[in-house]
Amino acid sequence: MKKTYLFTPGPTQIPPEVVLAEASPMIHHRTSEFSEIFSNVSEDLKYIFQTREGEVFTFASSGTGGMEACVVNSMSRGDKAIVVSGGKFGERWSQICETYGVSVVKIDVENGKAVDPDVLDDTIRKEKDVRAVFVTLSETSTGVVHDIEGIAKVVKGHNLLLVVDGISGIGVHPLLMDDWGIDIAVTGSQKGFMLPPGLAFVCVAQSAWESIEKSDLPKYYWSFKKMRKALSNKTTAYTPAITLIMAAGKSIEMIKSEGIENVWARHARLAHATREGMKALGLELFAGDASSNVLTSVKIPVGVNFDAGIKKLRDETGVTIAGGQDELKGKIFRVGHMGYVNDFDVVLSMSAVEKILHENGYKIELGKGVSKVQELLVG
Amino acid sequence: MKKTYLFTPGPTQIPPEVVLAEASPMIHHRTSEFSEIFSNVSEDLKYIFQTREGEVFTFASSGTGGMEACVVNSMSRGDKAIVVSGGKFGERWSQICETYGVSVVKIDVENGKAVDPDVLDDTIRKEKDVRAVFVTLSETSTGVVHDIEGIAKVVKGHNLLLVVDGISGIGVHPLLMDDWGIDIAVTGSQKGFMLPPGLAFVCVAQSAWESIEKSDLPKYYWSFKKMRKALSNKTTAYTPAITLIMAAGKSIEMIKSEGIENVWARHARLAHATREGMKALGLELFAGDASSNVLTSVKIPVGVNFDAGIKKLRDETGVTIAGGQDELKGKIFRVGHMGYVNDFDVVLSMSAVEKILHENGYKIELGKGVSKVQELLVG
Repeated sequence: MKKTYLFTPGPTQIPPEVVLAEASPMIHHRTSEFSEIFSNVSEDLKYIFQTREGEVFTFASSGTGGMEACVVNSMSRGDKAIVVSGGKFGERWSQICETYGVSVVKIDVENGKAVDPDVLDDTIRKEKDVRAVFVTLSETSTGVVHDIEGIAKVVKGHNLLLVVDGISGIGVHPLLMDDWGIDIAVTGSQKGFMLPPGLAFVCVAQSAWESIEKSDLPKYYWSFKKMRKALSNKTTAYTPAITLIMAAGKSIEMIKSEGIENVWARHARLAHATREGMKALGLELFAGDASSNVLTSVKIPVGVNFDAGIKKLRDETGVTIAGGQDELKGKIFRVGHMGYVNDFDVVLSMSAVEKILHENGYKIELGKGVSKVQELLVG
Repeated sequence: MKKTYLFTPGPTQIPPEVVLAEASPMIHHRTSEFSEIFSNVSEDLKYIFQTREGEVFTFASSGTGGMEACVVNSMSRGDKAIVVSGGKFGERWSQICETYGVSVVKIDVENGKAVDPDVLDDTIRKEKDVRAVFVTLSETSTGVVHDIEGIAKVVKGHNLLLVVDGISGIGVHPLLMDDWGIDIAVTGSQKGFMLPPGLAFVCVAQSAWESIEKSDLPKYYWSFKKMRKALSNKTTAYTPAITLIMAAGKSIEMIKSEGIENVWARHARLAHATREGMKALGLELFAGDASSNVLTSVKIPVGVNFDAGIKKLRDETGVTIAGGQDELKGKIFRVGHMGYVNDFDVVLSMSAVEKILHENGYKIELGKGVSKVQELLVG
């Protein structure tokens, strides 16, 4: 019997309660009924972003669309931006900026490492007229979490705009819009939010509006100004993804009821157990001390055809973990533990990793990873 | 007992089978399982657009995002485009074009009328260097259907690019990409497709690629080139709205099984009955002979507070019809009959319209509209 378990770096598994909300009878989006659902969601999203004075806009879009929205609303032609690039998603900031004629100064961080805020500080000092810094909270391609709090201190010290891709990180790692002084942050529905993909949430602080007002890049669907006006009328600028927003109403209620600090702590605990389990199996973490709590990235031992094992595992058991992307293909594997995950999920995913290793000729003592996880989570 | 019935001009009601597909267990989008679903959907979409050689790209987005994608991929800075504007959605083409520095020649069509292809022909002759014509199949704000076949003949006669907003029209009115020579057409999931909002489908004919290759407008998320490359790998460029695509698999299967010609004929029949029912009540159609089969727009009789009646109807019975938007607010009401609708739905919506009129002081013979519908559909 196959049972579906998703331990990929997104999408996450969806709680049955959320699936039910998504399956609610369709309603029209220009009604008081929808407005009430939508304004509750928009208000609760502020709690997740930890902002009082910021606003959160909900786009029918993947996270990448939300990233494009951040660039086209906050930047102007010829602006200079620093992009911290330590993987595929950091690189995406560069690509989007360059698409719109924003001049990019890239800080290339080695795959598997986090950026040093001092290096960012030096780069800002060296460059002239930098307007903004674009960073990634959790780099899904490498499994690294960046120190956004430290980065924010540096960026605010220079009075620049800070834009954070929190697509896989928000709702997993702490991100405090107001306290840290983040100007714009974006996330997607299919990670910590326990929702299907299809929504991008963008949180815009008051401090960002001066740049937004000045921005001369072309935008229509992504316009923050139109979204802000619509939000003041408890709606979206264009037809919202109604069923996903109904689902969001339920999943965010679950997050609120657990308490965001507890959600962060749960992820930290599960990620820690996963990392220690991998080490107990003799494996090496790809991101070392910079490992994200969203996913654990692990170096594939020499000689193991892990990607074939992932496919076989999925086909035969329904359990899905992920390999590496692009230049990391065949070099790392990635186990997600975000969103709708608890202790037993980590036991299960560790069991699956052991199974792949065992079946692909890597000599391990079966149960060693699982035992370590048990010890840490049950002990 | 309230029961939810949506007779708005989108979103449409969702068949239970489609809701179930949407509620399927989440799967990862970079798997053979998803690729199979997605490539089937992409292939079947070609049938709905009636194209053999075109390709259909699926964006996680509202229809408006799909419209923006059409503009930024096919136009270049300083290009001149003719926009047929006969309502809010025609106007949207102008706004998007102007946002990107495309020079717009607008053909203003009176609200409630369809464009005369000869007027378009004259305009093309008069203007110099027009590159493209942007039109709307079914203008949701006024309930008008435009003669795309006639328009296409004119546009092709001048060898210009034809881009059609079929957001509410496709899957309701015939639209033959190949036979009519349409270059690009866009639609949304929440209309004829019987799906929740959140997907935009864009069909691109081979004939459009010369313009796409030349286009110098900035684009990232909306890039057709990236979508085409991804589609050749049976996937999307960025994370797809997985649950909506699973739902699409089911709803498009239902459309195929009914047969697209039968789907068009069903809509024509239901729309005809609705129009005749309205006339039997002594009401005047706002769009007259140009009335769309997507929705019926009707002039509100003098002295009737129809909008208050719509709200009361929804609150008390769960049946939703729509008023007018923007300058047509209070002047027309709109009854949708698209997607998951059959004879009995038309009887029901006509009953609801009679109820509103009756309760708001408009003297009608109760049952007269319903009887006419019965006569036409049952008789």
